[in-house]
Amino acid sequence: MMTDPVLVEVTRGNVVESAHRGALAVVDADGADVLVLGDADRPVFPRSAVKVIQALPLVESGAADRYGLTEAELALACASHSGEPLHAETAARMLAKAGREPACLECGTHWPLGAEATRALARSGAEPTALHNNCSGKHAGFICTACALDVDPAGYVAPDHVIQREVKAAMEALTGFAHSEELRGIDGCAIPTYAVPLRALARAFARLGAGTGLTRERAAAFARLRAAVARHPFMVAGTGCFDTILMEALRERAFVKVGAEGVYCAAFPELGLGLALKCDDGAARAAEVAMAALTGRFLTLSNEEGQAVSALSRPPIRNRNGLVVGTMRPAAALAGA
Amino acid sequence: MMTDPVLVEVTRGNVVESAHRGALAVVDADGADVLVLGDADRPVFPRSAVKVIQALPLVESGAADRYGLTEAELALACASHSGEPLHAETAARMLAKAGREPACLECGTHWPLGAEATRALARSGAEPTALHNNCSGKHAGFICTACALDVDPAGYVAPDHVIQREVKAAMEALTGFAHSEELRGIDGCAIPTYAVPLRALARAFARLGAGTGLTRERAAAFARLRAAVARHPFMVAGTGCFDTILMEALRERAFVKVGAEGVYCAAFPELGLGLALKCDDGAARAAEVAMAALTGRFLTLSNEEGQAVSALSRPPIRNRNGLVVGTMRPAAALAGA
Repeated sequence: MMTDPVLVEVTRGNVVESAHRGALAVVDADGADVLVLGDADRPVFPRSAVKVIQALPLVESGAADRYGLTEAELALACASHSGEPLHAETAARMLAKAGREPACLECGTHWPLGAEATRALARSGAEPTALHNNCSGKHAGFICTACALDVDPAGYVAPDHVIQREVKAAMEALTGFAHSEELRGIDGCAIPTYAVPLRALARAFARLGAGTGLTRERAAAFARLRAAVARHPFMVAGTGCFDTILMEALRERAFVKVGAEGVYCAAFPELGLGLALKCDDGAARAAEVAMAALTGRFLTLSNEEGQAVSALSRPPIRNRNGLVVGTMRPAAALAGA
Repeated sequence: MMTDPVLVEVTRGNVVESAHRGALAVVDADGADVLVLGDADRPVFPRSAVKVIQALPLVESGAADRYGLTEAELALACASHSGEPLHAETAARMLAKAGREPACLECGTHWPLGAEATRALARSGAEPTALHNNCSGKHAGFICTACALDVDPAGYVAPDHVIQREVKAAMEALTGFAHSEELRGIDGCAIPTYAVPLRALARAFARLGAGTGLTRERAAAFARLRAAVARHPFMVAGTGCFDTILMEALRERAFVKVGAEGVYCAAFPELGLGLALKCDDGAARAAEVAMAALTGRFLTLSNEEGQAVSALSRPPIRNRNGLVVGTMRPAAALAGA
């Protein structure tokens, strides 16, 4: 395995306390490299970073229209949300529109990802349900899709269920990378995840953003989902979350999505560029700093946009008294120095 | 900066999804290398991994005897605890013995590190106090020490307060490494932390464990703290925490202590060995796996001990339905393959 460069540093005082290595690819819709750092050809699990691709069948199947899903609901179908009440309620409403109950969700249950959401739920004396799972919107979308296709949603997380076959077909078409059982893992929410090279993931997002190299229906489906997320960035993540903050600032200028274990996929549609990155160690904090740094590097930003992006690319490290004791920052390789 | 080897791998299906690099040193009390991987000479912040050294003045000053601190209280003085009720109550009792209030704590307030402890506190309708800070026991120990020395504890977190000067002197004597302002950072709990090479940290713990190369008083103080932790491993961390589980299994055979940003320091007293490791990326999950793997490599374990250590060195990765979808494991460099 080649050694990927340091992408992000964590300082304390004058010392670099920790450092995160990783790889990334920024490519255009023809697949031409714009920026490649590290090993962009090693297959990596995109995890939740491709949720918008996993949500394409929801639109393409006609399910979104048939059940009259709102933009907020479509945004939630692309989300890794923090389990706040509005997220859980929205997932429940999506299911209700297809005549289904939360018990149909096969994603499993966990306490909300959001720390304050967890404390609020505990304060209320309640326990979490599958609706609080950060993937409940995506799963509600899967169930709506199955219902619209007149397919029994039961078992929709299995690789051979029509839903996962559709998702896999969309991924293979967009990435141009054949998905093999050998490179298949099971995601946190029970669906299959297939390892794909970063370069191929970046190309998929370049094509989606540019609307080229794919059918008109697919281009329209992505445009609809992207617009939904841009208008409802809260739905795709939550209070204080990176993706929400970045897209509240940039709206349709950037489509970004985190994946577990240090992954980001993104499209900069006005530039026709797609991006995929993976921190080798799986650190979300470093993936976020890298994503923000690359956003600032490629997009020409207004003052206000630039301030939002800078705050995300150089977040302070504070001690328990709130004092700034260090910072996270893009390393030289990432800053283009 | 030299490239440290991969110490720990995280798998999903048949794929290595993430990998953690790091450095470590295992040395004897004379400072001779037993095992060195990666750059063991680069100064790193030990953070909370040296809490037992920071607690030496509590014993050596006579404060522990003067206030009749119990073994459980001494263990808490060495702890990064999970903020469970018994931890908070014990810290309050230590302060009360010195005639002080929780308001004297200068460590700051945060919700308990333990997820269930946080939910229980929220369920009760309460808010966290400085007693829930994972360092509250150490800080209570600082305050007891100041009081026993007839020094005003106010400002005890500052580098020039007698408490931090005592801590620094103990660290310098044990590590043999001069602590400079240039290599000083501010820890999460507001006290100074000085970057020290792993090899020097390992030597300090080898000396402490072997009881050689230090005064009889210091050897006795460490032996007392070590025995306290071995008898009260819950106090040093908490329910489900690595350090508690490992020392519940091994008692006085291993003294191990986690530090923030992927650090461990440890002593294997029966072997006269000290250990220090740092995951480059700061990941606690990898530092734990590495610590467990090294414990299994150096100590000859009974079946029961071996099972406990194996469970810690190869923890499964589960999805939200509880299904095992991957594992964490020591990489070849660490396993000695």
